[in-house]
Amino acid sequence: MPGTNQQVLLAARPTGFPKPTDFRLTESPIPEPADGQFLVRVAYLSVDPYMRGRMNDARSYAEPQKLNEVMGGGAVGKVVASRHPQFAEGEFVTGMFGWQQYALSDGRGVMKVDPRVAPISTSLGVLGMPGLTAYFGLLDVCAPRSGETVVVSGAAGAVGSTVGQIARIHGCRVVGIAGGDDKIRWIREELGFDAAINYKTENVHAKLKETCPSGIDCYFDNVGGSTTDAVFPLMNTHGRVSVCGQISMYNLEKPEMGPRLLPLVLVWTLKVQGFLVFQYASRYAEAFPHLARWVTEGKLKYRETIAEGIENAVSAFLGMLRGENIGKQLVRIADL
Amino acid sequence: MPGTNQQVLLAARPTGFPKPTDFRLTESPIPEPADGQFLVRVAYLSVDPYMRGRMNDARSYAEPQKLNEVMGGGAVGKVVASRHPQFAEGEFVTGMFGWQQYALSDGRGVMKVDPRVAPISTSLGVLGMPGLTAYFGLLDVCAPRSGETVVVSGAAGAVGSTVGQIARIHGCRVVGIAGGDDKIRWIREELGFDAAINYKTENVHAKLKETCPSGIDCYFDNVGGSTTDAVFPLMNTHGRVSVCGQISMYNLEKPEMGPRLLPLVLVWTLKVQGFLVFQYASRYAEAFPHLARWVTEGKLKYRETIAEGIENAVSAFLGMLRGENIGKQLVRIADL
Repeated sequence: MPGTNQQVLLAARPTGFPKPTDFRLTESPIPEPADGQFLVRVAYLSVDPYMRGRMNDARSYAEPQKLNEVMGGGAVGKVVASRHPQFAEGEFVTGMFGWQQYALSDGRGVMKVDPRVAPISTSLGVLGMPGLTAYFGLLDVCAPRSGETVVVSGAAGAVGSTVGQIARIHGCRVVGIAGGDDKIRWIREELGFDAAINYKTENVHAKLKETCPSGIDCYFDNVGGSTTDAVFPLMNTHGRVSVCGQISMYNLEKPEMGPRLLPLVLVWTLKVQGFLVFQYASRYAEAFPHLARWVTEGKLKYRETIAEGIENAVSAFLGMLRGENIGKQLVRIADL
Repeated sequence: MPGTNQQVLLAARPTGFPKPTDFRLTESPIPEPADGQFLVRVAYLSVDPYMRGRMNDARSYAEPQKLNEVMGGGAVGKVVASRHPQFAEGEFVTGMFGWQQYALSDGRGVMKVDPRVAPISTSLGVLGMPGLTAYFGLLDVCAPRSGETVVVSGAAGAVGSTVGQIARIHGCRVVGIAGGDDKIRWIREELGFDAAINYKTENVHAKLKETCPSGIDCYFDNVGGSTTDAVFPLMNTHGRVSVCGQISMYNLEKPEMGPRLLPLVLVWTLKVQGFLVFQYASRYAEAFPHLARWVTEGKLKYRETIAEGIENAVSAFLGMLRGENIGKQLVRIADL
């Protein structure tokens, strides 16, 4: 085991829902840092919905994941060898280290993680990319005002659960949509959402009508599809829709038809905006102290679903695509 | 004839495409202005796509048109009797006078029209609501930059033809989509659009690909439906879509299904925004001098399709819904 670096590669481009055989676990020698580089031993891998899109060979905002290369993705770990002046052995760092036990880095896109603020795993969740996504997607795109009604889909995921709590902190009425009674209970009882709807067992449109008596001012969409179809007709004039994800469609073999939404965009003069967290890179430093303070004060709670071992990264990813996780889905591949 | 006021009422709420029998031509005595009122003799009525939406008894941005009342709508005419201190006999005025020969007004929402600037009919077109709609919907919602590519649907209508020319004035490459060779020829040859596509005879998606080699930065949508489906996949990152109208769907008896567009909103981080010109009421005074100057300088051309006589208002309205007009559809009901 010492001297080898286990890695998960993309072996084939999935058609529809990915199969375990679309991936391959391999090993290679642990690399040595050259001058200006450092070596990271990874503690946690992040598996995220956006990764499914990158597995397609399609024009999109990011280059497709290359075949037979290490799966890209965020991770957090410890510097175990360094020939880089700004990163010292023993420091915790987060970056796009990919699905592997060890990664070389030249420091680009890498941030240091202070384990005294919160457990290092949060750098992949509430204090990392999902937390920042929630922060900017809600506050910048939707700009909710106190007293407004905010609906969030995928409400028990890493992003959605954070969106709802930030909206509550800003004085909004918050209704979450998620799949499963345990998820519903968590966001309702522990996170303090005003209402929660289980899309697997309830009529989402009817329940929204009941739980949003003043209509919907802001909709943070992680899911798309029929859930979103149920939300749009209840939007208020000048409503704002933040399009963060469309996970219900990522595994379709061919595009799905749905009711046309632009007539509603017109009559309610809605603003519907897609965004990527990377657009806000220059403002991360503005958001992070707020997120960290809310976590410390207990106003922003989080939950992690943790798979053990790099050999379970693929099943954790597939489980996340099926919605089996509550909160942030992680894979622990070393105990540092 | 003197002493009577011919009026067109909504007699029944249309199902699907309106029928002539959904309207009724009646007459009533010409009213007398009370103190603080004036009487307008109407020269031109405007027929507009938005009127179809108001004929439904549905929640929308405006109250539904009431049954057995005079059809609401913009018009322009001359003050023929006045007991209002700010409006004198002989002045030309435009306002929501409705489909009738004479209208009483207390001056609210009424603007004076200077016939020395341009023919009074333009107060219902390029220098009126359609012109302002084009101005704000393009410049405020899409905010095109010089060198960007702007696509406009309904490009030979009152709004669309103005949108394209304003985009040209701002240094954009402009491609228009319209139905009919005469429309295509007009916007291409007389208005100077860079390209024009006849959606009735050409493959819109293929033609857009050919005529927008750098993709589409801004889309001004008057039409919706399959035309819009052809545009969205060609949008560039951070593209902007101004949703002004969805005329292809106004006469459907039940909602139509279509390909889902939110996945494209996500991957291209689009902003899709519905708007109403009335939102910009406080800024009309900013836009009007620009529009008037461009018209005077010959940079902003317009065309009118004029039906004669109030008895032809309904057929002019139905023809406009079928796309038979080029430029602004008007009904001349008096020669003042």
